[in-house]
Amino acid sequence: MQIYDMAREHAVISSAKAVIGWDQETYLPAAAASHRASQLAWLSARAHDLATSEAWRRALETAEASDSASNPKHRANLRELRRAFDRATKLPTELVARSAAASSLAKHAWAEARQRADFAAFAPHLQTLLDIAREKADRWGYAGEPYDALLEGYERNTSTAAVAALFDSLRPELREIAQRAVEVSAAHSPHLPPGPYPVAAQQEFNAQVAAAVGFDFQAGRIDTTTHPFCTTLGPRDVRLTTRYDEADFTSSLFGVLHETGHGLYEQGLPADDFGLPSGASVSLGIHESQSRLWENHIGRSRAFWNHWYPLAQRTFPQLAEFPLDDFLRYLWRAAFSQIRVEADEATYDLHILLRFGLERRMIAGTLAVADVPAAWNEGFAELFGFAPEDDRHGCLQDIHWAMGGLGYFATYSLGNLNAAQLHAAARRDPAIATACDAADYAPLLAWLRQHVHAHGATLDPADLLTQATGSPPSPTAYLAHLRTRYL
Amino acid sequence: MQIYDMAREHAVISSAKAVIGWDQETYLPAAAASHRASQLAWLSARAHDLATSEAWRRALETAEASDSASNPKHRANLRELRRAFDRATKLPTELVARSAAASSLAKHAWAEARQRADFAAFAPHLQTLLDIAREKADRWGYAGEPYDALLEGYERNTSTAAVAALFDSLRPELREIAQRAVEVSAAHSPHLPPGPYPVAAQQEFNAQVAAAVGFDFQAGRIDTTTHPFCTTLGPRDVRLTTRYDEADFTSSLFGVLHETGHGLYEQGLPADDFGLPSGASVSLGIHESQSRLWENHIGRSRAFWNHWYPLAQRTFPQLAEFPLDDFLRYLWRAAFSQIRVEADEATYDLHILLRFGLERRMIAGTLAVADVPAAWNEGFAELFGFAPEDDRHGCLQDIHWAMGGLGYFATYSLGNLNAAQLHAAARRDPAIATACDAADYAPLLAWLRQHVHAHGATLDPADLLTQATGSPPSPTAYLAHLRTRYL
Repeated sequence: MQIYDMAREHAVISSAKAVIGWDQETYLPAAAASHRASQLAWLSARAHDLATSEAWRRALETAEASDSASNPKHRANLRELRRAFDRATKLPTELVARSAAASSLAKHAWAEARQRADFAAFAPHLQTLLDIAREKADRWGYAGEPYDALLEGYERNTSTAAVAALFDSLRPELREIAQRAVEVSAAHSPHLPPGPYPVAAQQEFNAQVAAAVGFDFQAGRIDTTTHPFCTTLGPRDVRLTTRYDEADFTSSLFGVLHETGHGLYEQGLPADDFGLPSGASVSLGIHESQSRLWENHIGRSRAFWNHWYPLAQRTFPQLAEFPLDDFLRYLWRAAFSQIRVEADEATYDLHILLRFGLERRMIAGTLAVADVPAAWNEGFAELFGFAPEDDRHGCLQDIHWAMGGLGYFATYSLGNLNAAQLHAAARRDPAIATACDAADYAPLLAWLRQHVHAHGATLDPADLLTQATGSPPSPTAYLAHLRTRYL
Repeated sequence: MQIYDMAREHAVISSAKAVIGWDQETYLPAAAASHRASQLAWLSARAHDLATSEAWRRALETAEASDSASNPKHRANLRELRRAFDRATKLPTELVARSAAASSLAKHAWAEARQRADFAAFAPHLQTLLDIAREKADRWGYAGEPYDALLEGYERNTSTAAVAALFDSLRPELREIAQRAVEVSAAHSPHLPPGPYPVAAQQEFNAQVAAAVGFDFQAGRIDTTTHPFCTTLGPRDVRLTTRYDEADFTSSLFGVLHETGHGLYEQGLPADDFGLPSGASVSLGIHESQSRLWENHIGRSRAFWNHWYPLAQRTFPQLAEFPLDDFLRYLWRAAFSQIRVEADEATYDLHILLRFGLERRMIAGTLAVADVPAAWNEGFAELFGFAPEDDRHGCLQDIHWAMGGLGYFATYSLGNLNAAQLHAAARRDPAIATACDAADYAPLLAWLRQHVHAHGATLDPADLLTQATGSPPSPTAYLAHLRTRYL
């Protein structure tokens, strides 16, 4: 079918771009950056041209017209191709180009402004990006408020109001758990025995763990980067990245477990459908559920370390006399951090709640750019009990706004909720629970393959979760998990 | 100017393909090969479409028409763009596709046939590729014989007859030098102290050497592969590759020196002209001159090792008691090998002479495919004094014919000749000779930058050599070099 062929061609272009982007973050020589940008821009333009072309529109219409009696997967593919096409073609090329140019300038300005904790230098760029985001939202359209149209790009068929209501309902309990976890942790003051934990030994240990939980190294790799990520270069080519801290081997290990969760999802998608919605991940909230499940529910569990701690002790001799209970207390430590990416499981969502609330008001126009730092500091103090030391440790800390990435922070917390709900549902199968308690994760992965990965993007995230777990999305399992771990 | 913009866009596409090709040879997971082929095919098609388009033709004609008073570089660029366009557009798309498909099939068939030393299984593929090569030659046109049209693609403005006459004149002396070198080497039976020479130590040593001779690691890297190569991913992004033998550190080192020579050329091309002929290498014979110069004239010189041997001894303790003279004798060893890629400096060209002669007859139609093995074995025995043990060690040894790469073996020997002529000319400057004798290669590299690299492809290879050295291309310096080294 012609539209499928075109979608697959689009995936060839996008995945070529992914190869080049991966190399940029791993092996690119310092002097080579500017030409690399030309290669990425050229490929982006070709992918955009194809996916918004008249030929694509006609092929899609032809397929839709002849589709009366076809199967559900096919209908879902056409529905999602239509959704993406409408979304892409609602933006004029001029706006797409203006948006890319504004982000490019803003990223440079942000990096300098953050360095100097100088919000005023970044403010005009943020204003431009906000204006562009609102213009996009207006063109995409929305039922409730402009933020809906942005959120839809990352988590389809949800609403800003529903997320806000969910977060409001969670706030008191998350606050209480975080407060209590931080107090307990402060009393114990857990520390890892001093390093160095040699990089080569970390790499070997991490690779053994990743392979043991199911990552297929015939169809993927782990390389080194500054800001870790997972990217897919083809249907059997999933690249994880991490970074190493010789003072703390758990930093790279949990980075790898997190990215392995993303990678297992990508490796579990139907490879023959690569390029079609049925061969693609469904949303950021589901993607993040896979990374958080393996990172936190598996990787920070006692059962996991009952199995792996002896090997860790052989790999890193300084652990030989360090008791497993002390090690677990170190893994479960909690503290109020100014910086989101350094936050632990107990305090992480508070960062997301803060940022989601501010972003929503910025897009709605009820929070002016000039007032962002004060609003940030006030909101932060309410949640964390103290104010950030400066804007570098406050509203300037993340690159997302400078990238024009407005609308997706909520999916980090949705991922946490989804992870807990999926993990709890899988464990209702006694065979899975027993295997997990013996650090055998093949049955759990098989369950995720069947109930999550195999569906690609054919189900809405909420429907996928409901079908997989038997209940609509709910924070119950997540709060239970946090309470068990921290209270 | 529009044709320049289009040429630069073409280079963006080609260099994106180079990134993906590089990854394929270095880091690609085993299961990912088939999708990778789709990415390369898509990019190849786009590059071909652009460079043979009507828009390209019009832009080139416009530039040519408005070109009466412009500078020599500009004229050279237009001349070379015209040459490439005419060559590309003389082949119908159908023939290009048929050629690619035939090579793809032939490569698989060759790999199996070589494994089993079964020429008959490869013969039909070779016949097809020969027919295609002749069809291309007819379409491209030639003055003397069809082989001219193939050779032109690798070494412009030379002729098959001229190369044949050159090789005929060299044969007796190359035979004599090889025979004598092999005898002397056999009498000494040089050996390196046993390994292991650890890979990590080799990597560190090689990187120091490459940097010391001028390779810019801000604009390039060294990675590991099976069949070493040098590739350019952008104007400041040159990737070398090598492979490691823990029994012999000189294997990777001379591989790196060879590829560094290619890489220094690529890094020395005018970066601002990337994508234009003035920013591109001129021919395989000149490219190979740069690799062979650094590999053989520099890397196998006593002056080089006077400087580097102490570090090699510190890096590899088993060399501590191994005298420098014995080490040099090991580097200068010679033996008659059945396999070209294992051949030493003293015997290498004999392989090229054999293959060039056979290829020429195959293309001319005076050597039938069925008779290739017998002709190979007979020709080999004449040059080397013994017959290959089977076709695997004879006419099936190289992948080039299976790739459709007919017409370029001669450039390996032209590269040897050019290297010697350039090296001798540079050393006529006493400051360069003195510096080289003290293992300081900055003056030599500066000379190559000025006399070779800076010209890009604006001069014909013979003119470049004549301008650089003061004499037309000649084997004198090469034969003198071999005699000095081996007799």
